[in-house]
Amino acid sequence: MRGLLEKLSKVVSAGGLISGDALSERLFPGSNLPIALVRPKSTEEVAQILAICHEMDQPVVPHGGLTGLVDATQSNHQELALSLERMNAIEDIDVQSRTMTVQAGVPLQTVQEKADEAGMLFPLDLGARGTATIGGNASTNAGGNRVIRYGMMRDQILGMEVVLADGTIISSMNKILKNNTGYDLKQLFVGSEGTLGVVTRLVLRMRPLPVSQEMALLAIDDFTKVTEFLNHIDSALGGTLSAYEVLWQDYYQLVTQPPAEGRAPLPDNYQYYVLLEALGGSITADQERFVTALTEALEQELIADAVIAQNQGERDALWAIRDDVGQVAQNAPIFAFDISVSLNHMESYVEELKASLTERWPDHSCMIFGHLGDGNLHIIVGNGDSSIEAKKAIDETVYAGLPARGGSVSAEHGIGLQKKEYLSWSRNSDEINLMKVLKQSLDPKDILNPGKIFA
Amino acid sequence: MRGLLEKLSKVVSAGGLISGDALSERLFPGSNLPIALVRPKSTEEVAQILAICHEMDQPVVPHGGLTGLVDATQSNHQELALSLERMNAIEDIDVQSRTMTVQAGVPLQTVQEKADEAGMLFPLDLGARGTATIGGNASTNAGGNRVIRYGMMRDQILGMEVVLADGTIISSMNKILKNNTGYDLKQLFVGSEGTLGVVTRLVLRMRPLPVSQEMALLAIDDFTKVTEFLNHIDSALGGTLSAYEVLWQDYYQLVTQPPAEGRAPLPDNYQYYVLLEALGGSITADQERFVTALTEALEQELIADAVIAQNQGERDALWAIRDDVGQVAQNAPIFAFDISVSLNHMESYVEELKASLTERWPDHSCMIFGHLGDGNLHIIVGNGDSSIEAKKAIDETVYAGLPARGGSVSAEHGIGLQKKEYLSWSRNSDEINLMKVLKQSLDPKDILNPGKIFA
Repeated sequence: MRGLLEKLSKVVSAGGLISGDALSERLFPGSNLPIALVRPKSTEEVAQILAICHEMDQPVVPHGGLTGLVDATQSNHQELALSLERMNAIEDIDVQSRTMTVQAGVPLQTVQEKADEAGMLFPLDLGARGTATIGGNASTNAGGNRVIRYGMMRDQILGMEVVLADGTIISSMNKILKNNTGYDLKQLFVGSEGTLGVVTRLVLRMRPLPVSQEMALLAIDDFTKVTEFLNHIDSALGGTLSAYEVLWQDYYQLVTQPPAEGRAPLPDNYQYYVLLEALGGSITADQERFVTALTEALEQELIADAVIAQNQGERDALWAIRDDVGQVAQNAPIFAFDISVSLNHMESYVEELKASLTERWPDHSCMIFGHLGDGNLHIIVGNGDSSIEAKKAIDETVYAGLPARGGSVSAEHGIGLQKKEYLSWSRNSDEINLMKVLKQSLDPKDILNPGKIFA
Repeated sequence: MRGLLEKLSKVVSAGGLISGDALSERLFPGSNLPIALVRPKSTEEVAQILAICHEMDQPVVPHGGLTGLVDATQSNHQELALSLERMNAIEDIDVQSRTMTVQAGVPLQTVQEKADEAGMLFPLDLGARGTATIGGNASTNAGGNRVIRYGMMRDQILGMEVVLADGTIISSMNKILKNNTGYDLKQLFVGSEGTLGVVTRLVLRMRPLPVSQEMALLAIDDFTKVTEFLNHIDSALGGTLSAYEVLWQDYYQLVTQPPAEGRAPLPDNYQYYVLLEALGGSITADQERFVTALTEALEQELIADAVIAQNQGERDALWAIRDDVGQVAQNAPIFAFDISVSLNHMESYVEELKASLTERWPDHSCMIFGHLGDGNLHIIVGNGDSSIEAKKAIDETVYAGLPARGGSVSAEHGIGLQKKEYLSWSRNSDEINLMKVLKQSLDPKDILNPGKIFA
């Protein structure tokens, strides 16, 4: 270990190696401190660090902003933590090519702000934007609120630089949208949670900055109409639909009644509430089209009730209702889930889940909301018990309906340590074996984030 | 060889194995006939065929619709051709989940038509639509006309089933948009040109069917304005921009003067012509917005002249001008290229290319047009010489400006055999080595489309 730190201290610049007491102040206190935290300032330093670790069979846990939800950055006393936080430069903003070239440690919010200053949009958005880093977003294929319009993080990446386990730098920093020259290597690293390589730099795709934002809250009483209305409105809005969030009744009531600060814009006796957002290019024309499309939906009885936000304050208030996730703590202890299921199976999945929960724990709470347009639901369940056994029982109840429906135990959060025993509920053994073949061929010594993803 | 055919004949259903005289009738005549053409009817048959070939070290060349442009399906006398043409069922159309489940041998046009019948859009589109198969589109990551709006084939795939070199079936046939459960394996096979696995089935993403189509032809005199206008119009159209095709003056003149049938909708003395298309959801509102955005661009002098198509006939006529690529044969012998370069480097790239061509071959022809919104140009060069030496000299002249600009020698056509000696002009040695690591780990005996992509 001493040998390791000595070697590392020779390759990283001043302040690049934190260990001992400074380490417990720097990272969350507790029993899981790594050997040290190494903070390279350049890709070359990352490469040298990994070459040293590779030679010494030293496991490495890459750190982004540490905002992940599945313990993918947890380490033990034998592991070295590698933070990209000092690689936080925006290297290039190219409005003509509509790209931004960044180092991995730049916070997501900084990327958003710099794009905005340049008159462009970087569309990835999620609650942890101030702390989450763009490299972490890439390593976890982050999702968020506007996936239905702009895709996940995978779709925002044109170029990538990554350092492999042995220190080899793979630089594919192209600014181009189309490049069918052999295998598209960057795809392999997106969402691999630091197990195949350490992302060091990215070329990001920027989009035109929207000039109009339309929002509405709709009430619907029948799940079939939730999906019919999605098709109707997505077609009628002609490419501007940017969020199709659904709140199940229980969750809607929770976030629109005290102690929550939000007040119900629509009566709370409907089964489903849709938060709709469109981002467009023409304030007058977009508003007209938005109102027309909703009027048609009311006339066709696809929706039962509607309120259209009239100004920025009302738009913000609608998002605030959706985002007041903290209210679920009223039912603490609770466990939170992030599942995907195709829309043709979603209603039966939820019905089955609620029946199972009721049968097993009549007094449970179950709050459901999420990015329904993407097939992604967040489900918050509490049964009054915070034990590991209770978690396991609830986990299994929530995931039980997914395998037969081709659903996913992790839509956007990843696997990390927390979900690895459920990986096989969404992936078959041949898929998992092939993943292990890839892991073995890229990291034969298993030094990159070992023990994550795979049981 | 006899042993191989005997074994294959036992696993494929009637009519599934073509060899001998029947083969030369069936495939293009010539010296490059494979041993036989095997035509499985199911994934299980594909798996058994590959298991046999794997055991016997038998090279296999997968066939889709054979419309590729880089000889990626060319075979020799020692190879077995495997066609997916009998796996041509549409298995499921799920409007609620907005997915279509298909076998690999379905022609692209059939997928488009079936989506249309269901009131949805399958957006991938290219000239060979009637013959190209959806499995071939996946294996080559096909592009085409509407990538700027909907992405390439990669972006249309939710689920994939693929058979590995040893016959293992990897089935990831999920219908979901978001699935962060381990590595996204399908990404590895998209665009791998049959060298990593044989795609057998796909779950495709369908989009809302547009109800409005707006088109215009614009004239611009300055390349900077070509990119400024792209940003202006993409923003102003708020998500509906579906094509931004640019025709350089020479090409515009070629396709609007006899013997071409098209007539010039705008004077032919401008440097650049932009063919603009928007697909939207509201006929009146979209038209109004389209006209407003173009009027603004004229006022701001981003564009010098414009003609807006007033009806379907005029819209079709504009596309017909763009698509009359056959006119380049007037300059035969010619060589065609498919390059990408980021927009900030495109003008200097083209200037340098034209200067090099003029210096070397004063009487050359050079026609340029393409999907400029994607950074993708098609370049057609002729110097009166059809020899292999002439091709090589022109190849090198066209590609010379790409490496320093991070450009691509193949935006959408792939590498196959034709471009493999230029792979290293767009990919560095570390990238190519990593591709070979992947190839080696998935196909250690090198039986899947050997000799393609890599020199």
